[in-house]
Amino acid sequence: MNSLNTTSTTSRKSTTSNTQPIRAVIIGANGYGGVELLRLLSQHAQVQIVSVVSRREAGKPISAVFPQFYDQLIDHDGQPLCFSAMEAVDWAGVDVCFFATPHGVAMRQAQTLLDKGIKVIDLSADFRLKNQSQWAHWYKETHTAPELIAQAVYGLPELNREALKTATLIACPGCYPTAIQLGLMPLLKTNRLLQTPIIIDAKSGVSGAGRSANTAMLMAERSENFSAYAANGHRHLPEIEQQLSIMAGQPDKPVSVIFTPHLLPIHRGIHATLYAQYQKAPEDIHNVLSQAYAHEPFVSVLPIGHHPETRAVRGTNQVQIAVAYPPNTDYVTLLVVIDNLVKGAAGQAIQCMNLCFGLPETTGLRGIIAI
Amino acid sequence: MNSLNTTSTTSRKSTTSNTQPIRAVIIGANGYGGVELLRLLSQHAQVQIVSVVSRREAGKPISAVFPQFYDQLIDHDGQPLCFSAMEAVDWAGVDVCFFATPHGVAMRQAQTLLDKGIKVIDLSADFRLKNQSQWAHWYKETHTAPELIAQAVYGLPELNREALKTATLIACPGCYPTAIQLGLMPLLKTNRLLQTPIIIDAKSGVSGAGRSANTAMLMAERSENFSAYAANGHRHLPEIEQQLSIMAGQPDKPVSVIFTPHLLPIHRGIHATLYAQYQKAPEDIHNVLSQAYAHEPFVSVLPIGHHPETRAVRGTNQVQIAVAYPPNTDYVTLLVVIDNLVKGAAGQAIQCMNLCFGLPETTGLRGIIAI
Amino acid sequence: MNSLNTTSTTSRKSTTSNTQPIRAVIIGANGYGGVELLRLLSQHAQVQIVSVVSRREAGKPISAVFPQFYDQLIDHDGQPLCFSAMEAVDWAGVDVCFFATPHGVAMRQAQTLLDKGIKVIDLSADFRLKNQSQWAHWYKETHTAPELIAQAVYGLPELNREALKTATLIACPGCYPTAIQLGLMPLLKTNRLLQTPIIIDAKSGVSGAGRSANTAMLMAERSENFSAYAANGHRHLPEIEQQLSIMAGQPDKPVSVIFTPHLLPIHRGIHATLYAQYQKAPEDIHNVLSQAYAHEPFVSVLPIGHHPETRAVRGTNQVQIAVAYPPNTDYVTLLVVIDNLVKGAAGQAIQCMNLCFGLPETTGLRGIIAI
Amino acid sequence: MNSLNTTSTTSRKSTTSNTQPIRAVIIGANGYGGVELLRLLSQHAQVQIVSVVSRREAGKPISAVFPQFYDQLIDHDGQPLCFSAMEAVDWAGVDVCFFATPHGVAMRQAQTLLDKGIKVIDLSADFRLKNQSQWAHWYKETHTAPELIAQAVYGLPELNREALKTATLIACPGCYPTAIQLGLMPLLKTNRLLQTPIIIDAKSGVSGAGRSANTAMLMAERSENFSAYAANGHRHLPEIEQQLSIMAGQPDKPVSVIFTPHLLPIHRGIHATLYAQYQKAPEDIHNVLSQAYAHEPFVSVLPIGHHPETRAVRGTNQVQIAVAYPPNTDYVTLLVVIDNLVKGAAGQAIQCMNLCFGLPETTGLRGIIAI
Repeated sequence: MNSLNTTSTTSRKSTTSNTQPIRAVIIGANGYGGVELLRLLSQHAQVQIVSVVSRREAGKPISAVFPQFYDQLIDHDGQPLCFSAMEAVDWAGVDVCFFATPHGVAMRQAQTLLDKGIKVIDLSADFRLKNQSQWAHWYKETHTAPELIAQAVYGLPELNREALKTATLIACPGCYPTAIQLGLMPLLKTNRLLQTPIIIDAKSGVSGAGRSANTAMLMAERSENFSAYAANGHRHLPEIEQQLSIMAGQPDKPVSVIFTPHLLPIHRGIHATLYAQYQKAPEDIHNVLSQAYAHEPFVSVLPIGHHPETRAVRGTNQVQIAVAYPPNTDYVTLLVVIDNLVKGAAGQAIQCMNLCFGLPETTGLRGIIAI
Repeated sequence: MNSLNTTSTTSRKSTTSNTQPIRAVIIGANGYGGVELLRLLSQHAQVQIVSVVSRREAGKPISAVFPQFYDQLIDHDGQPLCFSAMEAVDWAGVDVCFFATPHGVAMRQAQTLLDKGIKVIDLSADFRLKNQSQWAHWYKETHTAPELIAQAVYGLPELNREALKTATLIACPGCYPTAIQLGLMPLLKTNRLLQTPIIIDAKSGVSGAGRSANTAMLMAERSENFSAYAANGHRHLPEIEQQLSIMAGQPDKPVSVIFTPHLLPIHRGIHATLYAQYQKAPEDIHNVLSQAYAHEPFVSVLPIGHHPETRAVRGTNQVQIAVAYPPNTDYVTLLVVIDNLVKGAAGQAIQCMNLCFGLPETTGLRGIIAI
Repeated sequence: MNSLNTTSTTSRKSTTSNTQPIRAVIIGANGYGGVELLRLLSQHAQVQIVSVVSRREAGKPISAVFPQFYDQLIDHDGQPLCFSAMEAVDWAGVDVCFFATPHGVAMRQAQTLLDKGIKVIDLSADFRLKNQSQWAHWYKETHTAPELIAQAVYGLPELNREALKTATLIACPGCYPTAIQLGLMPLLKTNRLLQTPIIIDAKSGVSGAGRSANTAMLMAERSENFSAYAANGHRHLPEIEQQLSIMAGQPDKPVSVIFTPHLLPIHRGIHATLYAQYQKAPEDIHNVLSQAYAHEPFVSVLPIGHHPETRAVRGTNQVQIAVAYPPNTDYVTLLVVIDNLVKGAAGQAIQCMNLCFGLPETTGLRGIIAI
Repeated sequence: MNSLNTTSTTSRKSTTSNTQPIRAVIIGANGYGGVELLRLLSQHAQVQIVSVVSRREAGKPISAVFPQFYDQLIDHDGQPLCFSAMEAVDWAGVDVCFFATPHGVAMRQAQTLLDKGIKVIDLSADFRLKNQSQWAHWYKETHTAPELIAQAVYGLPELNREALKTATLIACPGCYPTAIQLGLMPLLKTNRLLQTPIIIDAKSGVSGAGRSANTAMLMAERSENFSAYAANGHRHLPEIEQQLSIMAGQPDKPVSVIFTPHLLPIHRGIHATLYAQYQKAPEDIHNVLSQAYAHEPFVSVLPIGHHPETRAVRGTNQVQIAVAYPPNTDYVTLLVVIDNLVKGAAGQAIQCMNLCFGLPETTGLRGIIAI
């Protein structure tokens, strides 16, 4: 069996704790989200990676496809760790399975794993939307496990910390929705915004588009270039509306949003610029955010006048937020940066894993400085 | 005298026309706007560049500072064209002087040149704002030529074509304001927008920040990075408000705008995403824009569903605009791209020059394909 | 028939000359080389583009695939110019056909066109190598038109100017070989180099890899990244050896070269660093190059101490070369920059076209300043 | 006193070991090397950062200048860690002082610190060259502490491991020389190369040029651009010659090298392409390298046919090397990638620190996956 021998690869992994490591499987490890999970889990002291599944690359050493892992991951026999086929996975003793797959995969496999007592953490959209016909509309197929939707806990710890502690099926948020919700949550919860549409202008590095061969995403097409996409409606829209409405305490009356994503000519990073009309005192807004996040290990609210930059959180699970007051208006501008692959995907998935396995929430994620 | 011999440098320059070439001087040619003027004017069949002034680089060959001109610009004596000092300029016979300087320079020199019968085209902010105390507030000094402000024609041909034909002093718009005004003008003029704040989320390549040595603008700081700046108020704000109010037919009642600029990790290009609440039929909006610009040589309105990219206009005086309708709102999203150094600066300046010298407006600017 | 109406699209095209325009067809216009031909030919006063052929995009407006052409190319009927299928081309009256296709296409179609009296300018490798079995070895198929190989003139004007004037079949050089030959030609011709291997370390922007969907060339793979490729042998190697040997006057005894190409995270540009051991006086070398190129319109030799940069020739047909003398050795280092799509492909093809049609060699290519 | 409280900032730091942490001071922490030291040392379980000195930024919170540290570094009083002035440093109990300063600083201060029993690790060039007049020639000033030169140990662990274990003054290698030496060391030591010049074509990301405001290094100058520099002689040349000669066992007879550095439009990374003429069997060369580095924790030799990429080691202390055999020559091509700020500077400094304090050499450096 192809299993990562954690003690021999990294000197920082410690098995001094008495608890058994969490045994994890990653499905869809040949995409950027999956690779990021592999990177972060390989440095997580309490996790043992059992299998890394990719149907396309099954049998190949991971380092042959992703050279940053060369000499960094070896298995029990001292051999370079290889991708497995799904069929080759030995599920006995596995604690958690991460799905870093496109939509439509986790929903077909989750029940089987849950029945084995394996927790499922899904990085795709399969279980994010509560309304299954809305899901079918945006993802263009009928949901195959609607009965699991209600069971799934939306994987945003800063919102659903308690529910995540007892979750068995976790739906990790989309990357853009993560940044957007963290920027707005304290203001929505304390009713500081009017009902006028919230305008969300978001920009993401190209890793967010995935690793499929695609002319539009060639470096020759995107280099020295910038554009918007899906301006007439993006799949994250229903998730954003659902979540902001929950935060506003009006789950059945959608908060009105306008959302325009854009492609940045960088590898990773999301910057969301949010425009919302407030009621009550503007100078209060920075305070509300600072206080709401004062004890959140992964969210920082910058001083007034600062502008967060994507590289300041690159490679980390950190979020940086700033508040600006456009002159002569009753609008507030929020600036939010995250790393789309970390807090927007794999890092958040691990933050959720820590919660549902009773570990300190920051295990394996804190103290990493951006580069 | 250091003067560019146009016939010998470029084979496309034609002096078959009977009119004398326009004799031009460029002040502040060692910045990106000035270099862009030099690039475009050197390819303009009706212009003879008389002097290229830079106090800092006076005496040096232009190609020693800007290698793209190596073997491309020679003077009457067959020598590489050099920067001149201001004092060395022979103004006799000069028709037009371009100021590609920081603010505060043109306003100190314009009157002297106008008195000599020389037209002045200023790429700085000196003559853009009609309200001189507003100018003083944003540019932190008292205006030294307030009497010229009323005389200056705002250099946006798509708006002020007739006035530009007889102008002697032209105030070229800022780069961001150019993109913003062209996106909104047809809708403001036909009263299709409500009075709610127009939200402007703009992104620019780094050449917009100029060529001064500055740690924050080092490649090592901006590479693989993205952030907003001046979110609490940018100097272009009064210009944007002034112009949009004029377009809306309410020059004394400012159109309300929220403006957040951002820095893109590319060399050149501006992308503005504009959000406005409309009245009347939404499907009308694309038509209004298409018809308004149907005969404008430099403005293209893309089909619905398209998203313009900055590289599609890079190096050209073209503008591409697209319209999107965010679902379930009465807002329209406008996407506008320009090259900040061409339509946002030097190209627009030349477009104005063509007008005020009675040439076809597109001379030296049309037919250039982006790269 | 879909034909470009040149007078209405660009104001700079002049049909005042008495000669008929050269009627041109471009095959394979949906790749970067083809698009570059289209860009440059659309600005060439003596060329009328008759058809733009792409099997994959046949029927689509060119601007739908390449937005930089939006509103820039229209046909006789005032409609946006579209890609044609090969079968739809009306060859009557066509003067020249450019092949901007992968290898293996031109060699199958050239004879038919030559029989119609149409000149063929091939941007692929099909006719570059004189030795057909060497071609078969590197391009992995048998040459289908070996009888045409001897007829083809190698399309490097600085070397083969006279032969190109009477050529009917032109084999345009590869991009790397262009830069390499121009750097070394004067030294090889004057026997200033020893027979030790010439070391060529070359770096190219990603457009050189073409426009096919390919995971390895995604922006997400190449951004903020640099690596070599084909270090054990690249297809340009036989072309480089063949040509350098011809230049050295020893066509049957290959000049020994070591060639390592690398991928730069930029869109376009080639920088070649060449290391050669000299005989005779070193200070002579800069003179030899300067004199050899003194009258070449597209080649500039920079002063000692200068280092050429790729952006200084970006978008132009220019070449910049510098000479350096590494201390304490009898080697010279040559630094050569070109734009891989212009002087390395389409621009050079047009330079050859000008020659074989008796036009001034610089028509449509000179006076363009890099951006 | 401003001292970093390590236990409260990072959950991975462990003070379960009985040894006292190493108390460290960083001088010149406002440059990229210094920031990188701060990043890596803040994650090092056995180090307590006592002071972070920057004359220019003294008194400011580090996060105000480097936002990646926001909420990541706090001192004993729970306050954000600030830069100190040199005069404010309390040297009592300090174990090691890192100099991340330009040349000329460490040599003026080292003796004083050594006299206090503090180990000095210098990232500058001050103590790299054994020949002080050679140092004076290249660094343009007289060495102020020539008596310390002989005492300094050259900080390349893969070469000087034993000497580093007892060193009190360590001269960290330059970034380029690190990559170059690691590529060539096994071949020089086993006498597999001929005496002909070794050609070194090296490419570095812009962080290698430092953080000083400098027009040539603006993003607007370097974006979408590539060029060589110092082709006529670079300051690293004497260090490269000195070290390669030592490795070849001929310290007084310099190995002949030709070295051309180039600037890559990326933030960090070095790629060195080395060309050397071998004697003995070529297929032996890959084996020699593989065996030489089989047990080196930071050096990986890739399989034949692979090409290392800079991003595969970005942010880590890893080195990846590949071997290629250019056809028909007796040369070998070596491809070496490192991160210029980690293995080329701060990471290597910490690797040396681990050695001279008797810690496992990989402490704080191993198991970090590149991003």
